[in-house]
Amino acid sequence: MKGKHYHLRQSLYHVLFDQRTRSGRRSEVLWGLLALLSVITVFIESSIGSQVTFTPTQWRLFIAIEIGFTLVFTVEYLLRVLTWPQPVRYVFSFWGFIDLATILPLYVLWLWPELAIHYFFAWRAMRAIRVLRILKLLRLMPALNSLWRAVVNARHQLILFYAFIAIVLVTAGAMMYGIEGAVNGFTSLGVSVYWAVVTVATVGYGDITPHTPLGRLVASLLILIGYSVIAIPTGILTAQMTAELQRKRLERKCPHCHQQDHEPNAHFCKSCGAKLPGIGEK
Amino acid sequence: MKGKHYHLRQSLYHVLFDQRTRSGRRSEVLWGLLALLSVITVFIESSIGSQVTFTPTQWRLFIAIEIGFTLVFTVEYLLRVLTWPQPVRYVFSFWGFIDLATILPLYVLWLWPELAIHYFFAWRAMRAIRVLRILKLLRLMPALNSLWRAVVNARHQLILFYAFIAIVLVTAGAMMYGIEGAVNGFTSLGVSVYWAVVTVATVGYGDITPHTPLGRLVASLLILIGYSVIAIPTGILTAQMTAELQRKRLERKCPHCHQQDHEPNAHFCKSCGAKLPGIGEK
Amino acid sequence: MKGKHYHLRQSLYHVLFDQRTRSGRRSEVLWGLLALLSVITVFIESSIGSQVTFTPTQWRLFIAIEIGFTLVFTVEYLLRVLTWPQPVRYVFSFWGFIDLATILPLYVLWLWPELAIHYFFAWRAMRAIRVLRILKLLRLMPALNSLWRAVVNARHQLILFYAFIAIVLVTAGAMMYGIEGAVNGFTSLGVSVYWAVVTVATVGYGDITPHTPLGRLVASLLILIGYSVIAIPTGILTAQMTAELQRKRLERKCPHCHQQDHEPNAHFCKSCGAKLPGIGEK
Amino acid sequence: MKGKHYHLRQSLYHVLFDQRTRSGRRSEVLWGLLALLSVITVFIESSIGSQVTFTPTQWRLFIAIEIGFTLVFTVEYLLRVLTWPQPVRYVFSFWGFIDLATILPLYVLWLWPELAIHYFFAWRAMRAIRVLRILKLLRLMPALNSLWRAVVNARHQLILFYAFIAIVLVTAGAMMYGIEGAVNGFTSLGVSVYWAVVTVATVGYGDITPHTPLGRLVASLLILIGYSVIAIPTGILTAQMTAELQRKRLERKCPHCHQQDHEPNAHFCKSCGAKLPGIGEK
Repeated sequence: MKGKHYHLRQSLYHVLFDQRTRSGRRSEVLWGLLALLSVITVFIESSIGSQVTFTPTQWRLFIAIEIGFTLVFTVEYLLRVLTWPQPVRYVFSFWGFIDLATILPLYVLWLWPELAIHYFFAWRAMRAIRVLRILKLLRLMPALNSLWRAVVNARHQLILFYAFIAIVLVTAGAMMYGIEGAVNGFTSLGVSVYWAVVTVATVGYGDITPHTPLGRLVASLLILIGYSVIAIPTGILTAQMTAELQRKRLERKCPHCHQQDHEPNAHFCKSCGAKLPGIGEK
Repeated sequence: MKGKHYHLRQSLYHVLFDQRTRSGRRSEVLWGLLALLSVITVFIESSIGSQVTFTPTQWRLFIAIEIGFTLVFTVEYLLRVLTWPQPVRYVFSFWGFIDLATILPLYVLWLWPELAIHYFFAWRAMRAIRVLRILKLLRLMPALNSLWRAVVNARHQLILFYAFIAIVLVTAGAMMYGIEGAVNGFTSLGVSVYWAVVTVATVGYGDITPHTPLGRLVASLLILIGYSVIAIPTGILTAQMTAELQRKRLERKCPHCHQQDHEPNAHFCKSCGAKLPGIGEK
Repeated sequence: MKGKHYHLRQSLYHVLFDQRTRSGRRSEVLWGLLALLSVITVFIESSIGSQVTFTPTQWRLFIAIEIGFTLVFTVEYLLRVLTWPQPVRYVFSFWGFIDLATILPLYVLWLWPELAIHYFFAWRAMRAIRVLRILKLLRLMPALNSLWRAVVNARHQLILFYAFIAIVLVTAGAMMYGIEGAVNGFTSLGVSVYWAVVTVATVGYGDITPHTPLGRLVASLLILIGYSVIAIPTGILTAQMTAELQRKRLERKCPHCHQQDHEPNAHFCKSCGAKLPGIGEK
Repeated sequence: MKGKHYHLRQSLYHVLFDQRTRSGRRSEVLWGLLALLSVITVFIESSIGSQVTFTPTQWRLFIAIEIGFTLVFTVEYLLRVLTWPQPVRYVFSFWGFIDLATILPLYVLWLWPELAIHYFFAWRAMRAIRVLRILKLLRLMPALNSLWRAVVNARHQLILFYAFIAIVLVTAGAMMYGIEGAVNGFTSLGVSVYWAVVTVATVGYGDITPHTPLGRLVASLLILIGYSVIAIPTGILTAQMTAELQRKRLERKCPHCHQQDHEPNAHFCKSCGAKLPGIGEK
């Protein structure tokens, strides 16, 4: 009996988490498609709801769909928790958090219906949380590991530069707060730093802009200098990414003749013609 | 008789499509100039029409010009379809679609004059479609093939990164929708994602902006992080372009002494002085 | 007696300025945390003050906190001046200026209370100056030296390019001033140059925009060309940064086997396993 | 007599144009400072004039200053034309055009005082033209030749890419014109292309923005794709600049031991210690 349980759990584990098996990849794609479908439904619901008020029939339809998706993802969550070798660790992992958070809203509304009185806020928060199901699609992108490793490898430099940029932005915000003041939209130091972020990153909404000649001069200098500084983290990240991809490419060995350094779009070894493993596979 | 037909079609094919012959290049430039002229006319017409209402004379003039261009491009379309080895494949190709679409509006209006009652919409759509004739100029840019090949070579990475950026943008949009809500302009999830695109790509129209302190904080973080991530596809594309141009340069061999690696602006071989082929030519 | 003084000063110097000793690093972090805490207090005060008027109790609380921080930083300033080998040089250094400026506002208000009648301006300026304490955190980032050295090494090129960009911006501003004029928001040449900066750096607030067809055409050309030119200083700086980091990496020698070129995140020599010094250390 | 004239002209030529002599460099800097001073005056005049109306005294002062500068630059123009080996070629060169254009406004107003009746326009145009004197400062930047040579070397690629970007922008503008129409601000095809430039270059003024859901979707896609494409000319230019600077560095030979590849900021040969020529000098 125990052996049967064990085998069931083992094979479920391989279906749910092991992307090296065909059934594992298929199950991954299936859960991804369900998550995508669920998010598309939420977008349609939000898009219609922003223009007309729902009729009771539409209302019931969207509620029914949502209950369906919640049940499906609840089953997914339970299966993933139970088949993972250490269930507790899964619950407190990134994926465990996402899987749980995106099924909670409906249960909360069901257990605590008074929230529905604060209709708009609860509904909006629920929609926003349900959209996080899109993050489940990240499971389908194992190649993001190289982006993640690039970030981890460059973390010292990135933290350093972001801290430096933060200091520059706070200083710039304080200067503009002193120069322009509340009458020109720089109502507090926090707002001024928000202005500095929006300006130096060249977003430039225009909701807060300098109006005094001195403020415009300082803003111009800040733009010209900041423009060159804020691109440095991008450069660091791109350089790390390139190094990481380079490393991956060198790691990809022909299983037959051990030739390295194949083009990323090559499917066969250029020396002996044997089939190559995919990038990131062994 | 059949041989004559065959020869006519053969030589027309070379005039219309073969850029290696002088007459082929000339005909290419001629059709390009006609397309450019037609588009310029449409712009002038649109520019005048946006400020004054046309007099009947002006009206008749622009109609006449448009009928003329439509007839010319109809002849071009028929010639291209008939001289292409497999006419049906041409009709369903990118160029066949462009050639057909840009002559259709007038025929549609002619066959279905009731559309003219819905005057403004039909006229506007017709103008917009006629402008697509500008795409015919792409025929004059065979060098774009290297851009296209760079995109194709990097397609796995590009799809991966655009999908990742899409997930980030949807998540960011949902968060801001939950935080700010309809009263601050984030009326639906779709609108919030549009805001996220406009913000992370640093366009920053300012038609929708965060107003709550928490929203501004989240927006600031999103800008600083997103700024570094969204530049990655650009880096990938540029790296691929450079590699492709490098490859092109190495491929350009002196026909006399087989020297490779000539400067892009070199017209003569640096070893033996023989005339070099153009870049991309054999 | 003198010897004791001398030793006290010597050891205070090491605690305050010498980051190679453990107590020096700890004192650095402590002063950094105090500066950060002080700045956070100023932000909270500014954020509350922009929405409600303070009650007398809150008022007294914030005044008391500020007096506390001013006293602490006054002690820091005096200690640093007195323990530095040449006190006068410290007073006129960058750090001396920052340390002094950020404690002055309260003393000025105390000595010259009439300023408080011009309440809003003095209060705003005081807040803005106090925020400069954030610059004290730069002491914790010795690695910024490589950014600074990159700037110094590339100063000729950077000055050249910024001067060139300045000439382009002034010319562009003058042209738009001539084309658009005051009725379209280009009220003076200075404002037009501010517009050119905001446009070419792609910030694009939208507070001043071209309205005439000719102005829009010139602005479009300026955007397309300027976009390519303004990125050049960024490229110069990034190239210099990379070269500088490369140099740093080569400088980091294993103290045991003298192996060079270790990965930035390596803690042990890849040849002999000895502990490596940190980047930038000897 | 003729010999004296000839010698005078010869030595004036060296003073005015030859930057290799000390007097030549000094005269260059002097004319540059005068041009800068003249432009600063124009900015001050414009800045004051935008806020208050001039008193007759101020009026006369600025007129007098302007007459002074015009006379000085007239002398400069005549000297440059007369001492240049082929005076006619100088008149029709870039510098001849700038030198002439920036002294003309006052003479035109003097010969044709009726223009003064159209006061505002003439005055504004005159100010805008006088600012072009800033371009005289470009004479002080011989190093810009490498930027110019990079542009010339990459001209085929740059023209190709700008033409491609132009086609993309026209197509995008036409699509948005068809989708959004005049009610949403896309009043004509020209305005729509202006919108496309402002959007794809990420300036994003926000004076014209999409309002329909379909328009926002198309705009989002255009932003994400265009963002990656528009950076390509920057990449080309930067790569060419780097190659050009690299070439310059290799060209800089030690006059004593013929060692190449010196650091840009090196003043002495690293092999033999001899004084190095400046970058770009022989």
